[in-house]
This record gives sequence, structure tokens and C-alpha cells, in this order.
Amino acid sequence: MRNVRIAAAQLGPIQKADRRQAVVARMLDLMEQAAALKVGLIVYPELALTTFFPRWYHEDVGDADIWFEREMPNAATAPLFARAKQHGMAMSFGYAELTPDGHRFNASILVDKAGGIAGKYRKVHLPGHAELDEARAFQHLEKRYFEPGDLGFPVFRMHGGIYGMCICNDRRWPETWRVLGLQGVEMVVLGFNTPSVNSQKSGEGPETRIFHHKLSLQAGAYQNSTWVVAVAKAGVEDGHPLFGASCIVDPDGRIVAESATEADELIVHDCDLDATRFGKETIFDFKRHRRVEHYGRITGQVGVEVPE
Amino acid sequence: MRNVRIAAAQLGPIQKADRRQAVVARMLDLMEQAAALKVGLIVYPELALTTFFPRWYHEDVGDADIWFEREMPNAATAPLFARAKQHGMAMSFGYAELTPDGHRFNASILVDKAGGIAGKYRKVHLPGHAELDEARAFQHLEKRYFEPGDLGFPVFRMHGGIYGMCICNDRRWPETWRVLGLQGVEMVVLGFNTPSVNSQKSGEGPETRIFHHKLSLQAGAYQNSTWVVAVAKAGVEDGHPLFGASCIVDPDGRIVAESATEADELIVHDCDLDATRFGKETIFDFKRHRRVEHYGRITGQVGVEVPE
Repeated sequence: MRNVRIAAAQLGPIQKADRRQAVVARMLDLMEQAAALKVGLIVYPELALTTFFPRWYHEDVGDADIWFEREMPNAATAPLFARAKQHGMAMSFGYAELTPDGHRFNASILVDKAGGIAGKYRKVHLPGHAELDEARAFQHLEKRYFEPGDLGFPVFRMHGGIYGMCICNDRRWPETWRVLGLQGVEMVVLGFNTPSVNSQKSGEGPETRIFHHKLSLQAGAYQNSTWVVAVAKAGVEDGHPLFGASCIVDPDGRIVAESATEADELIVHDCDLDATRFGKETIFDFKRHRRVEHYGRITGQVGVEVPE
Repeated sequence: MRNVRIAAAQLGPIQKADRRQAVVARMLDLMEQAAALKVGLIVYPELALTTFFPRWYHEDVGDADIWFEREMPNAATAPLFARAKQHGMAMSFGYAELTPDGHRFNASILVDKAGGIAGKYRKVHLPGHAELDEARAFQHLEKRYFEPGDLGFPVFRMHGGIYGMCICNDRRWPETWRVLGLQGVEMVVLGFNTPSVNSQKSGEGPETRIFHHKLSLQAGAYQNSTWVVAVAKAGVEDGHPLFGASCIVDPDGRIVAESATEADELIVHDCDLDATRFGKETIFDFKRHRRVEHYGRITGQVGVEVPE
């Protein structure tokens, strides 16, 4: 048994008018709840410090820089780092990153229980579009405000386990999970902000959207025999609904804990990292079973190529 | 609308003592049912002509050659080809293939409505083991009796659609689906023979096994926006249970038809190949969203490599 008590710290909506200080206060409340339960790792959502701003169009991309962090930790997040260290609790959260040389990423970090940044990730699979698209019911401008991540899908050794991160839309891509799985990942943490309706298909509502969300998490967990913690920012942000359904998924692909609301909510589960062994040593023992000589298209081409 | 009426023609158990002629008679019965329903493509399971013989150990591999076909069609299967052509029905089934130069594969074919072999596939992901393993509750010797397929995962244009095949354990590997998806596949047909219990984990019974089966099919369908038809050989073969759960899955990942028994059973669904377009053009528009520069490990390494 290598047990890690995990908390998925779902956040309810963050309005445009909400200040970071107020959001961090809510995150600290969830952290106190987690500390009372002796949680070892708390996971917050994607873009945890602000509203999901890629729904708002700015002609000048720089006008969105108010939503970005120029350093981490910074004044707004220092209390989170300090309190987590006091509790000896590891944590992960997402934020919009503006680098000193002007690059913008949708990022997340993994902070160890001593308060050091153990790992950093920048979202690779950016959904949506780069230009204003009036045909959509609402905008999803991640391709406008962010560059694709340039760090790949690294794993990090922390407290005796192997951890990986991804963010939101990354979870729909089996490549994400496989690259992490090929590095022996035992726990994948991810945050998401997912609209409750499809901006290009009005009939696709939350039931179908949550089905696709869970399907992707569960397949990724099962096919790589890893724990998964997926944490929502949920609820209605300035009129735009995001679904909840924060989940903890075991290495067999089963959902073992799930949020019940679209508000700030903590769900907690004891995850035995050794439960990943059976799958990794039998049906998904990659070394015995994978046949890379037939996978060439996966890295050799980007889009579809229909053979003649 | 490009509608194809599909029949998943599940077969109940085939005992060691059953002769091919008797099995083909059962397959013809299912074909007549399908013809009455004006089915365009009938899909039978993996190793449709015999019992699932890899559960039986032979010290001399050649002693298992009685389960293999040396040509296709052959005397036993000629009636299937003839009757399908009369009905103008395409078909697919799996069989053990022994090539003229002595290679053994777990194969499947796609036969067009004119009776020609439009496509051939040889199973890439062979589960199980090559040597007698007394620690298992029963043997699963696919790695003994078969070589890994040498044809990759090709797609085939047939009757205005793009078809692909895989077999049984291939469905658990996202690489299978993605290589087919990268060729624009619209319909994946596959057969399986899956034990109802895990030979290495006695507590894992049919409920969990069927969960993993469906999870893999549904994720493969959704993440590549393709129809999937998965067909079981089911029931108890000489004391060894195989589960049923033959399914037709739509490009949204939903199960739209499922078998109810572990016996010979036909399930039918009208599949609109154009229903694959929305997913392929939006969230899974590979050309816009995939980032192959970060996928290198998928083809660059076979097994797990944990970074230092």
C-alpha cells in the first residue's frame, strides 16, 4: 500500500467581477476542510484564479492580460502556498501564465508538501478557435489567447509516487494518457472548465457532455492503469454554464468519488498507488503487448489521410 | 445520409467436438434472418468457425493446425460466400489463418456484396502468453499459436464508406482506433472471444469484464468519431465461459444496440455514415488539434520508461 489521500477541490463559478483575493479565500476554505481530513494532495481546477475568460473576445489579445499571472507564486497566491506548506499538503492548480518573454500558456503546477514547485505543465490540446466566430452560440477562444504547451507531458516523482498533469480538453485525447502511461504514471491530476452545452450543436447538453467527459477519464485510467483526479470549475459564470462532475477514477476505470453540486465542493478518496500494478503488469504490460511498428501514423501525420 | 443496415451476428458457444459444417449452418441461419431484414453488412465474431482453441495447450504447435484455414474461401466456408453474394450482402468474419509458407495469424476478412474479399486484417495485439502457465486458472495461448499481424491497421473503401477491422484485444488499445481514425474510418467491425473471468484475478467477473469491453469500444468510437460493431462468440465452450455483450456503438460513443443472450443472436441497426462528420469536423478535427511533436514516446518506445 502506498496510500495518498486525495481531495478534488471543485470551485463554483467565478464571475468576471470577482477578484483573485476572493477566489483564493474560497480555495483556502476548501484547503482547511481538506486539512481536517488529513488530505495529502489537494487538486483545484483549470484557470482556478479567474473566470473562464476565453469566452470573451478581445480584438487586442493583450487586453486579456489582466487574466494572466506573470509569476508563480505571486501576491495573490502566496497565502495558498504558505498554508499548504503549514499543513504539509501537496497541491495542484491551473492558471493563465504570461512568461517574461511574452508567451501565454494555459498552465498548471504541482506543488510538493514542502511548498516547492515539483512540476509544471502547459496545456497541449487547445480547443476552440482563434478568431471571432459568430456562428457559435458563444466563443471559445483558447487558440487565440494561448500557445500550445511546449513542455510535452512530463511526469514527476513526488512523495514516492509518479504524477502527471493534463488540462481539460487534453483528457479527450488518448495520446495524452499514453505518453503519461509510457512514463509509468500512477496519478494524473487535471482541472477543467467545460461548457454545459456545445457551442456548435445546441441539442448537445450536459448529459451528453458529462458522458463524454467521464468516458475519456475512465478510458484513460483503465488503458494506462492509473488513478485520475479531474476537478471542475462549475456553475454559471456571467450567464455561461459549466458542468461539475468532478471525479476520482481508479486504475480499473471506475469512478470512486464524484461531486454532487456545481459549487465549491470537496470530494476525498484514499488512493493506493500500488493498485496500479496489476493492470500495468498484465493486460497493459506495454513491453509485452505494444506493436509500435504499426503505430507510425500516430506520430507521422497530424490530420486524416484517407488512402486511395 | 449514407445509411448502412448492419447486423452483428453473435454466435453462441462452439464446442471442440463441433464440426465447421455445423457452425457454418448456424452462420447461414443468422444470414437468412439478416436478409429478411434487408441487412447490408453482417458481422460475425473472431475465430467464428471453431472453438476458442488458444485455451488448449499443445506442446507441438502444429498439433493445433486442425483449427486453422489454409485458404479462404474453402470448402467449409464456400456456402457462406455464395449465399451472401446471392443476397447482395457484405460480410465479415474471423478465422485462424495458416499461410502457404507456414505463418499463423488470427485473421478477419471483409467481403463485399459482390462476394470479393475487399479487405483482410491480421490481429496485431495478441493477449496472453506463449508457454504453459500453471499459475493461471486457464490458458490463453494466443502468443503461442499466432504471430502478431503484419498488415497494420488498413482501411478499405467499400460501397461508399470507409471500413476498418480489428480483433478482440485490439479494442483495448487506443493506438488501434487512432491509426484507423487517421485514415478517416467511418465503421470499425470487430469480433471477440472474451473469457467471463480474469485468468489471473479470480475476483474479476463478467460485470467488470463487460465494463472494460464497452469502455474501450465507446472511447474508440467517440475519440475517432466512428461507428463500431463488436460481435461476440459467447457462452460456455467445454466448460469455459465467454461473455456476450455484442454492441453497435455510434460515433458519439453511445451503445445503440446490444445483444441480450449468450447464444446465436442477431442485432440490427441503421448506421448513417454521415453521422461521423460532426465529430471529425469539430472537436476531433485532427488537423487542427493534434500536436504530434509531443507524441514521440508512442512510437519511439515500446514499454514503460520512467524518467530519472
